[in-house]
Amino acid sequence: MAAIRQLDEAECMSLLGEHSMGRVAYVGDGVPVILPVNYILDDNTIVFRTDPGQKLTEIPMRHVAFEIDGGVEPDTWSVLVKGFAREITDVLGARYDALREVPIPVQAPGAKEYWIAIEIREVSGRRIH
Amino acid sequence: MAAIRQLDEAECMSLLGEHSMGRVAYVGDGVPVILPVNYILDDNTIVFRTDPGQKLTEIPMRHVAFEIDGGVEPDTWSVLVKGFAREITDVLGARYDALREVPIPVQAPGAKEYWIAIEIREVSGRRIH
Repeated sequence: MAAIRQLDEAECMSLLGEHSMGRVAYVGDGVPVILPVNYILDDNTIVFRTDPGQKLTEIPMRHVAFEIDGGVEPDTWSVLVKGFAREITDVLGARYDALREVPIPVQAPGAKEYWIAIEIREVSGRRIH
Repeated sequence: MAAIRQLDEAECMSLLGEHSMGRVAYVGDGVPVILPVNYILDDNTIVFRTDPGQKLTEIPMRHVAFEIDGGVEPDTWSVLVKGFAREITDVLGARYDALREVPIPVQAPGAKEYWIAIEIREVSGRRIH
């Protein structure tokens, strides 16, 4: 019989820091959209890069969800984030300037010269085994 | 340099049929939520089971997004679905009765006696290598 264990905040943050591919969900025209992204965790912020387009237009200044998961059945885990997204621009000050200097691995082609930061407001996770 | 290739609909449906773990996104109280689910694909419908709770209350009769991805960097792929979710109940007729007979592997504990069907309305995918 499968057992489920809730992960505490430290475990969730640790898993977020160890991984680099997640999925962001946002609401565009009232409809939910999920997109996979390469990311890094910097303190309490998830950062990813993007090109001009759907993500850049629709994600900043919105509530977003972010998810990572892993493991191999029957031993798997997932971490769910509720956050608020902002485009990282110079006007946001030194903290964001520093984030723009963080090297983020990007797999998809494109210059991806825009950075989006998701401030983590709530995190939860679970492990099933 | 990474190259990106759009997957056609047949490739997307094939990948959906070959896998059994995905992520559903929905809008609850105006805020996006992502949840991992075990699913099966039946024709043009993604089906998963759930217990009474958040998913059952908030997903049916709503637009949802669904995502699967896989591969190992630098060769990865993802499939994105836009769909409409319904709870599978007896009133929906023979087609849905049949879906409720489909065995869906469920990893998380709980009776999961409620079925939710996502009718696929749009599917897209890409492979990066």
